[in-house]
Amino acid sequence: HSKDKYQGNDVAGVVTGLAWTSVGGDILFIETSLSKGKGKFTLTGNLGNVMKESATLALEYLKAHSEALGLDAEVFENWNVHLHVPEGATPKDGPSAGISMMTALASAFTQRKVKRNLAMTGEITLRGRVLPVGGIKEKILAAKRADIKEIILSIDNKKDIDEIDAAYLKGLKFHYVTEMIEVIDLALLKTKVDNPIKIS
Amino acid sequence: HSKDKYQGNDVAGVVTGLAWTSVGGDILFIETSLSKGKGKFTLTGNLGNVMKESATLALEYLKAHSEALGLDAEVFENWNVHLHVPEGATPKDGPSAGISMMTALASAFTQRKVKRNLAMTGEITLRGRVLPVGGIKEKILAAKRADIKEIILSIDNKKDIDEIDAAYLKGLKFHYVTEMIEVIDLALLKTKVDNPIKIS
Amino acid sequence: HSKDKYQGNDVAGVVTGLAWTSVGGDILFIETSLSKGKGKFTLTGNLGNVMKESATLALEYLKAHSEALGLDAEVFENWNVHLHVPEGATPKDGPSAGISMMTALASAFTQRKVKRNLAMTGEITLRGRVLPVGGIKEKILAAKRADIKEIILSIDNKKDIDEIDAAYLKGLKFHYVTEMIEVIDLALLKTKVDNPIKIS
Amino acid sequence: HSKDKYQGNDVAGVVTGLAWTSVGGDILFIETSLSKGKGKFTLTGNLGNVMKESATLALEYLKAHSEALGLDAEVFENWNVHLHVPEGATPKDGPSAGISMMTALASAFTQRKVKRNLAMTGEITLRGRVLPVGGIKEKILAAKRADIKEIILSIDNKKDIDEIDAAYLKGLKFHYVTEMIEVIDLALLKTKVDNPIKIS
Amino acid sequence: HSKDKYQGNDVAGVVTGLAWTSVGGDILFIETSLSKGKGKFTLTGNLGNVMKESATLALEYLKAHSEALGLDAEVFENWNVHLHVPEGATPKDGPSAGISMMTALASAFTQRKVKRNLAMTGEITLRGRVLPVGGIKEKILAAKRADIKEIILSIDNKKDIDEIDAAYLKGLKFHYVTEMIEVIDLALLKTKVDNPIKIS
Amino acid sequence: HSKDKYQGNDVAGVVTGLAWTSVGGDILFIETSLSKGKGKFTLTGNLGNVMKESATLALEYLKAHSEALGLDAEVFENWNVHLHVPEGATPKDGPSAGISMMTALASAFTQRKVKRNLAMTGEITLRGRVLPVGGIKEKILAAKRADIKEIILSIDNKKDIDEIDAAYLKGLKFHYVTEMIEVIDLALLKTKVDNPIKIS
Ligand SMILES: [Ca+2]
Ligand SMILES: [Ca+2]
Ligand SMILES: [Ca+2]
Ligand SMILES: [Ca+2]
Ligand SMILES: [Ca+2]
Ligand SMILES: [Ca+2]
Ligand SMILES: [Ca+2]
Ligand SMILES: [Ca+2]
Ligand SMILES: [Ca+2]
Ligand SMILES: [Ca+2]
Ligand SMILES: [Ca+2]
Ligand SMILES: [Ca+2]
Repeated sequence: HSKDKYQGNDVAGVVTGLAWTSVGGDILFIETSLSKGKGKFTLTGNLGNVMKESATLALEYLKAHSEALGLDAEVFENWNVHLHVPEGATPKDGPSAGISMMTALASAFTQRKVKRNLAMTGEITLRGRVLPVGGIKEKILAAKRADIKEIILSIDNKKDIDEIDAAYLKGLKFHYVTEMIEVIDLALLKTKVDNPIKIS
Repeated sequence: HSKDKYQGNDVAGVVTGLAWTSVGGDILFIETSLSKGKGKFTLTGNLGNVMKESATLALEYLKAHSEALGLDAEVFENWNVHLHVPEGATPKDGPSAGISMMTALASAFTQRKVKRNLAMTGEITLRGRVLPVGGIKEKILAAKRADIKEIILSIDNKKDIDEIDAAYLKGLKFHYVTEMIEVIDLALLKTKVDNPIKIS
Repeated sequence: HSKDKYQGNDVAGVVTGLAWTSVGGDILFIETSLSKGKGKFTLTGNLGNVMKESATLALEYLKAHSEALGLDAEVFENWNVHLHVPEGATPKDGPSAGISMMTALASAFTQRKVKRNLAMTGEITLRGRVLPVGGIKEKILAAKRADIKEIILSIDNKKDIDEIDAAYLKGLKFHYVTEMIEVIDLALLKTKVDNPIKIS
Repeated sequence: HSKDKYQGNDVAGVVTGLAWTSVGGDILFIETSLSKGKGKFTLTGNLGNVMKESATLALEYLKAHSEALGLDAEVFENWNVHLHVPEGATPKDGPSAGISMMTALASAFTQRKVKRNLAMTGEITLRGRVLPVGGIKEKILAAKRADIKEIILSIDNKKDIDEIDAAYLKGLKFHYVTEMIEVIDLALLKTKVDNPIKIS
Repeated sequence: HSKDKYQGNDVAGVVTGLAWTSVGGDILFIETSLSKGKGKFTLTGNLGNVMKESATLALEYLKAHSEALGLDAEVFENWNVHLHVPEGATPKDGPSAGISMMTALASAFTQRKVKRNLAMTGEITLRGRVLPVGGIKEKILAAKRADIKEIILSIDNKKDIDEIDAAYLKGLKFHYVTEMIEVIDLALLKTKVDNPIKIS
Repeated sequence: HSKDKYQGNDVAGVVTGLAWTSVGGDILFIETSLSKGKGKFTLTGNLGNVMKESATLALEYLKAHSEALGLDAEVFENWNVHLHVPEGATPKDGPSAGISMMTALASAFTQRKVKRNLAMTGEITLRGRVLPVGGIKEKILAAKRADIKEIILSIDNKKDIDEIDAAYLKGLKFHYVTEMIEVIDLALLKTKVDNPIKIS
């Protein structure tokens, strides 16, 4: 399916994550959009409670650290945020989309482009740490099938990569991180998307 | 039953979708209406959670892309929206009514007529992509029984149509799309319905 | 029981419906009342989700078509509406009370009298169509027992009446309808009830 | 237990009802109180959904018919209402406390005394009809044990009383009613309780 | 455990209750505190629905009878109330903490000291009656172990005390009450706690 | 895992707690952050109801005793609080994180540093007492593995420490407390974190 391939970075607020299910690894897209409002946060995509909590955590982290991220704290009161994870028929859960969600939200609020051919997986904490997650081997294989070239992981997942046969890793570049701020530096370009919406 | 036949396009906000159940394919109507209010969104028709999420997604997409669709962003705060899917005794679920729902809402807010004898099925994403759905063969047969002449599908469902014996497809025209904006261009006429309500 | 007999039309907002349960047909009363407020809608009578959705649909239809029905759109913001279906100990569900509910609400808001000795059964849609429902034979027998003289049904239920032995139908007049507006024309008299409350 | 005896009518808003459980009949007290507020309605006493609906129905009926009952419609917006049914450890349900609840609320809002040694049982409708209820024989025996002298019932429960051996009915006076307004006329005295609170 | 001993009366809003569980009687503490706010009522301590209803009842009773208790009715709108029952890991339910809860709340709002070495158990009603509760023997033994000297009970629980061997009751003084107002007179001292907060 | 090690005290609002699960003891981090708002309290981390109640209790205690803690009572209305407990995939429950939660919140609102290499476990009450908790031996072993040097416990847990072989306790210093105020004095340094946010 073309829907299981990486799909470009023309739109702000869309980040590629990696999922691990009973039938193997897969990529998934974290899609976010903003509309004028009073700060309502809407979540769709058949998300379980842990994944919904990750999304809440991602947004609250951005709110609490807006200054460090160059965001005006007031934008969160003036815009509604919608976060969706296709495909709606598939239940999804777990904390591993945390860093993808936070990056997607950061891109939406800054309108900065997301780096091309990049995927990521990792749990976030409220302090901004990136925690290791499971299913790394299956996720890496799925990323390759989807034409991903770079992957961001927690430094604590390095040992999982080291255990994978090098042949499978060919053509992939790994970034190991400790803090969420590193993810944003790696994932968001300085340039904005074409026709950015004006956030204020 | 006449209720299982296509029923014309005189009313804004009504779009014909295609459903797939354990007893075969069927057409269904997405009905929307607006009333003065503060933006409340009401869903009826015995809808499951995934289908409710599709409706939320459809409305949020319109809000986030109102400018591109020629809608004044303020209309969403000044009108309540009701989306109903008859028949109330039948539970309904799944993401495949997504494009019908978004088209119905776009028709309601623009008061533009929906093209005659048209049906559609496809999942939407927050970026506006149209994803493939299941049960295509059964849905096509149901569309024919209901006197549908044109059908909109995701480009990723073309392979499902190609597998159907040509005899069954006689009299049907298919439109394969990638983006939601193509659906709106195909489905909504430039002319408004008779006695349009004034939306502002 | 006298409670299972038709009980007159002195009060605005009360309409006789027809129910079909595992123990046969029965009449039921849709009771509505208005009190000064901000548009809250209260439902009682041990109603299941589908029946509650019918009530929502009925009220939303009136709101969206208030002009065509001669109602000032603002009344819905200035009055609370209560809809009750006796008898509270009996669980009730299904969409077939839709037209009774919409008619009862229309009577309450216009204070127009409901035609005497009239009952009805049919599902409504947001477009205003009247859809056929089940259990017609049992419902007709119950209507006769309760001294009902006229019955409103969907045109798609005519075939169910045609299958009933004519002897059972003696003394009953049937009205077959397609649109909700026909129901209101048939069921609501031009005259108001005695001592109508002033709705504005 | 003294708690199972009739306990006087010194307080406004307290009415004696009759319950029927798996272990026989019992009296119960409907207690209501008002406190300054914005119209919140609080229900306690381990009440099931049908019984909660009865309470809602009772209050809504008073709101919709405030004028006929000599109540200023605005009082409902200026006072919070609490309705409690001791004893909290016992689950209670069913519609038969409807008339007791409506009478208790009418007493609270008018501060009129409730007639002494009176109990009642009956379902209410939104039109103000009083419907028959079950367990009449058991309820009557319980009323006698609790020193009740007069009982209000639906006219449709007269047949149940007629079936009881006259010996059991000695010392009891029955009032059979059709409409809720008759209950209020029978149950509420013209005099107010001592030290009435000023409701406005 | 010291946590199972009576712990003094230095703090306003803390009252000792008596609980009865499958493993015997126990004392429990009803703790309440006030913070500036708009009248929110927060309940913690793993409380079941009946016990939560008791707490609601206690607070509503105080609101409805604020004048008789010497409380300014407005304090309830200006302060948030929190009621907690340690220990959080133990589920608790039942109506018997009703009088402890009402006394604790009355102490918090008046800042009056609670009498030393006092415990109580009894259900409350909205009229202010104190109803008898179960498990009296086990509760009394637990009170003795915890160094309680005086106990308040419903007059209808006197028969339960009379059945206990006098040896077990040595050193305990019992107060039998009918009305909640007697409990407050017995339990709350005229003096305020040290450093009372100013409630208005 | 490095995530199972003590992780420094550079950030305000983060405290190390001790958990006890079916697979042994573990450390956990209580993370809190503040963002401008109206006092909303958000809890994440897959927390059970008892643990959520502990968090509510912790925040309410701070609100009710803000003066004693040197906090301006108004800060609670001007900031939203988020409390998170990594790791999201692990369900967590019980009251034993109570003192960690209250300390973390106190640090967030005062921006005072938390003492280095410190962990704690204990239930809190609304009066500010610290109650003993279970699993002490397993928690102590986990604390040692994580390089913790000091531990705060309820005085009622001292007997549990006394039963542990001294060899296991080497390098650990214990603080036994009765009141929550002692915990805050022990755990929060007088110095603020670097770049404290200005809370008012
Ligand atoms: Ca996929
Ligand atoms: Ca992921
Ligand atoms: Ca159908
Ligand atoms: Ca469809
Ligand atoms: Ca019946
Ligand atoms: Ca019906
Ligand atoms: Ca009883
Ligand atoms: Ca009763
Ligand atoms: Ca205990
Ligand atoms: Ca107790
Ligand atoms: Ca761990
Ligand atoms: Ca802990």
